[in-house]
Amino acid sequence: MADGLLAYIDNPHDLRKLSESQLPQLAQELRNFIIDIVSKNEGHLGASLGVVELTIALHYVFNTPDDLLVWDVGHQAYGHKILTGRLHAFQTNRKLGGISGFPKRSESEYDTFGTGHSSTAISAALGMALASNLKGDAEKHHIAVVGDASIASGMAFEGLNHAGVTDANLLVILNDNAIGIDPSVGALKDYLTSVKEGKNPKENNMIKSLNFDYSGPIDGHDIFALIAELERLKKIKGPKFLHIITTKGKGMQLAEENQVKYHAPGKFDKATGEILPKDESHLPPKFQDVFGLTILDLARKNEKIIGITPAMPSGSSLTYMMDVFPDRAFDVGIAEQHAVTLAAGMATQGMVVFCNIYSTFMQRAYDQLIHDVALQNLPVIFCLDRAGLVGEDGATHHGVFDIAYLRCIPNMIIYAPLDEVALQNILYTAQLGLDHPIAIRYPRGRGSIANWQQLHAGHYENIEIGKAHCLKSGSDTALLSTGSIGTNVRKALSITENPERFAWYDFGFIKPLDETLLHEIFSKYNRIITVEEGVIKGGFGSAVAEFAAANQYHNALEILGVPDAFIEHGSIAELQGICGIDVEGILTAMESSAGA
Amino acid sequence: MADGLLAYIDNPHDLRKLSESQLPQLAQELRNFIIDIVSKNEGHLGASLGVVELTIALHYVFNTPDDLLVWDVGHQAYGHKILTGRLHAFQTNRKLGGISGFPKRSESEYDTFGTGHSSTAISAALGMALASNLKGDAEKHHIAVVGDASIASGMAFEGLNHAGVTDANLLVILNDNAIGIDPSVGALKDYLTSVKEGKNPKENNMIKSLNFDYSGPIDGHDIFALIAELERLKKIKGPKFLHIITTKGKGMQLAEENQVKYHAPGKFDKATGEILPKDESHLPPKFQDVFGLTILDLARKNEKIIGITPAMPSGSSLTYMMDVFPDRAFDVGIAEQHAVTLAAGMATQGMVVFCNIYSTFMQRAYDQLIHDVALQNLPVIFCLDRAGLVGEDGATHHGVFDIAYLRCIPNMIIYAPLDEVALQNILYTAQLGLDHPIAIRYPRGRGSIANWQQLHAGHYENIEIGKAHCLKSGSDTALLSTGSIGTNVRKALSITENPERFAWYDFGFIKPLDETLLHEIFSKYNRIITVEEGVIKGGFGSAVAEFAAANQYHNALEILGVPDAFIEHGSIAELQGICGIDVEGILTAMESSAGA
Repeated sequence: MADGLLAYIDNPHDLRKLSESQLPQLAQELRNFIIDIVSKNEGHLGASLGVVELTIALHYVFNTPDDLLVWDVGHQAYGHKILTGRLHAFQTNRKLGGISGFPKRSESEYDTFGTGHSSTAISAALGMALASNLKGDAEKHHIAVVGDASIASGMAFEGLNHAGVTDANLLVILNDNAIGIDPSVGALKDYLTSVKEGKNPKENNMIKSLNFDYSGPIDGHDIFALIAELERLKKIKGPKFLHIITTKGKGMQLAEENQVKYHAPGKFDKATGEILPKDESHLPPKFQDVFGLTILDLARKNEKIIGITPAMPSGSSLTYMMDVFPDRAFDVGIAEQHAVTLAAGMATQGMVVFCNIYSTFMQRAYDQLIHDVALQNLPVIFCLDRAGLVGEDGATHHGVFDIAYLRCIPNMIIYAPLDEVALQNILYTAQLGLDHPIAIRYPRGRGSIANWQQLHAGHYENIEIGKAHCLKSGSDTALLSTGSIGTNVRKALSITENPERFAWYDFGFIKPLDETLLHEIFSKYNRIITVEEGVIKGGFGSAVAEFAAANQYHNALEILGVPDAFIEHGSIAELQGICGIDVEGILTAMESSAGA
Repeated sequence: MADGLLAYIDNPHDLRKLSESQLPQLAQELRNFIIDIVSKNEGHLGASLGVVELTIALHYVFNTPDDLLVWDVGHQAYGHKILTGRLHAFQTNRKLGGISGFPKRSESEYDTFGTGHSSTAISAALGMALASNLKGDAEKHHIAVVGDASIASGMAFEGLNHAGVTDANLLVILNDNAIGIDPSVGALKDYLTSVKEGKNPKENNMIKSLNFDYSGPIDGHDIFALIAELERLKKIKGPKFLHIITTKGKGMQLAEENQVKYHAPGKFDKATGEILPKDESHLPPKFQDVFGLTILDLARKNEKIIGITPAMPSGSSLTYMMDVFPDRAFDVGIAEQHAVTLAAGMATQGMVVFCNIYSTFMQRAYDQLIHDVALQNLPVIFCLDRAGLVGEDGATHHGVFDIAYLRCIPNMIIYAPLDEVALQNILYTAQLGLDHPIAIRYPRGRGSIANWQQLHAGHYENIEIGKAHCLKSGSDTALLSTGSIGTNVRKALSITENPERFAWYDFGFIKPLDETLLHEIFSKYNRIITVEEGVIKGGFGSAVAEFAAANQYHNALEILGVPDAFIEHGSIAELQGICGIDVEGILTAMESSAGA
């Protein structure tokens, strides 16, 4: 565990007792501690290594928690957590019941604003600063630390645009390392690069155009320079902007050299940095690889296919297509709104656009989906990656609302594949040309068919839109599942003592619902149990309840899904258990007295 | 009707047969025609008057519809519609079955992209331009016309940031009139003003930082200058940016002098511009005025109250508070995302924040609502104005999805007041301090209580959260309504021949549901009819269906609301009729055989 100086720092008050000359040693210890724990426990590595000096400098110069510090996104906040009372708790990072991998208000008074999604920090810190003005706290400092990928998102611009006309005591620190999870993109990034390289005089400054006091760029690993500049800025009132240059993964050679891989590398050898090898050849594929390889295969055959990702080329596996068809696969940066309307614009010209967005980030482009795509009935194909419970990333990242927020939109088709083969086939079907937009939701992680490629390589089936399927008959109870949570239903059926009682239906299509089959089911079975990996309120089961009401069926209906609460972090299996949609939960519902 | 040159222009091909010297006359005729029709039919006036010259110049220089022209927001597109085959149809503008007040793809091939909400045009036009590149249409032009209020929205920045690193043949025209619906705000607006005033050399240009070929500013009412510049830009490949200066309401003195009022002035005297007086003193108040006057009254008593509007101070009536407490009421511009997270930041510091956003624009900040407010359970008070059917603005603007998209979010309270008094009381109750965020949804237009101020001035009631009310008992059927659509239920009850059959319950709270009362209702009445002004899928009725399923009630349940289709424009009464939630529709459902 921690020794040296770090062991004596319970909170920033202890830090501020150190002399400046001791801080480089502390930085080294903090870096080693992060590497030590993350090498064993997994988590986000590179971002926190890149801001070790900044983290120390901020808590050294400012009077946290009275001064308010907001970490944008929060991947980089491990050092902050360790220095603010969570040194020992850090080994529980991202585990069920442990501390969150992101700043979280309920966890510490030093976590002034919960983050996870990007580009919120400027708005939040500005809100705090304006509140301080109104309360007469004119001396309080409000600091937002924002990465260069995140500041290119529209929301950050909105925050800057407002802050620039206020007298808020706000310091925006641009942590410029030219990378988010993947390398940063866009015109602003090019501009920042030119500033760094001294090609733009400081007078010619975008940020100055927005009425900020701009300073930088300075070396974000020079702790003495950072402290001096923060001390200087502390004395300046109004909105201020400090541009610092850092290296993601700083201090671990392999992480500096392979920044995408070491964003969240999994377990690694803390001495060498080598990622520990895992033999995964026998495992079923990740849904992400199924998406990536399938869209590449389809794109070879259909030249109208375009791929779009807002800043998640690696995470979504769109990289397969980007490598082969760089002109047809676009990483637009953290710009979900733009991504969706760009897709709509392309679709008006007859292109077949796959827009891959994590379910939780689709929330960022909800209006564009309604107003630009669905209202115009443009056949954009949305691939909602990481739908359902995502595990260790926790409450900010679960993709559990999509069924509810999509189902109310006219014209939308919503499909959740049971397995890898169904995902392949719906991707194939969608690019043949649908009359409507479609959202295809699939989970983080692995499917259930290890030999998927041998089974189905290049051989696709055209899926009939809106058709559900009976996978098993039964005598009294029908299980209706949508998506890959159906594999839990399959397992529950394999271990129940009365399998003959239960029928099982796969409702890939949440919308349109297969009403023909529903009439059959409601006529045949007294009791119906729906199962989905999404919120119960407004979800698939709710759609079935609406159907029952509209058709005056009075069968017993039980809806299994995510309850009406934000679900914290833990393994996906643990969280499914909490929600009662793991194998055991489903089995319990099946065998409960209601059905006896 | 139209005479002179205008009468001979069926489409832009006819326009392009005119000599340049004839265009000022055409501009005058087009301006007069717009004034003539809008003075009688109502609609958006100022924006279209401001771009008469630009509209003619664009269709004159570019080869529309092969060249693709996107009008951001679309308020300004009347001239475009008139010149593109809709001269005669223009008198049906915004009427049921008539042409839309916004560009609409299904209406004309010249309407390349439907708009209504702001800041989408750059993304859409860029998508078209990138598609053209892939299709080998290197000569095609793609033009986005964007106002200065709209370009300050984050989404527009995202589009520019992407476009700047492409070779897309894209022309962005900034129509800078320093006003949206209300005057523009923010640092970018100040910057643009300084550019206009010659205080910034052209070299020091934000837009150039984003790698655009910038030209301007030029006088947008000088049609010859416009044509010359557009001809020049036509020959330049890649992303281009033209900054033009126009006057909203140009050519009608009163409209130029009162730009906010003449955005959509209602009926007026076309000769003088005078708005026709209406005696509305006997009418019930607008819900907007109830909000505006009540929040002002509450703000006088509670100094922690803050008001926020994203660019709708007049529309929402937050102006009452802004006039009296300018430091505590913020117009943040068209920046819904920022508005919501700003509110969250303020709430962390103990401020009581009323964030007023039109229901349809709340879709723009859906993730911020989930991630920044609800997940942190911050007690921000959202006032969702124009919830329900909004009438003539049509499909882009109806606020009918909010119940469905809010209901799935944990921690949210959702309330829809039956009338003005209930709105006042919930505003009062919310600022006393709730443990959760709340969304208060109320409709466009007038309530039902003419003497609301005399009745309740300054005298508020604390509403019990989650409690529904029985307004009338009955013998066999219970009507459950939420929000002001309940006034239609009241009328239906007053004219049915069998009033004794029907009970009526007001469910102001959609979440949390009053389950105690629901148990009573489901125990007492065989048949239940829910009524809401929102989509059926996932809405209030769906919540009741979920309750019935969870509690194994098997009563007959009918859900009245907006069907699963985008509802077009027309009067609110007409549209309620189409949805079956006008008085007659509700009466029909009440008296249908299902309940006999």
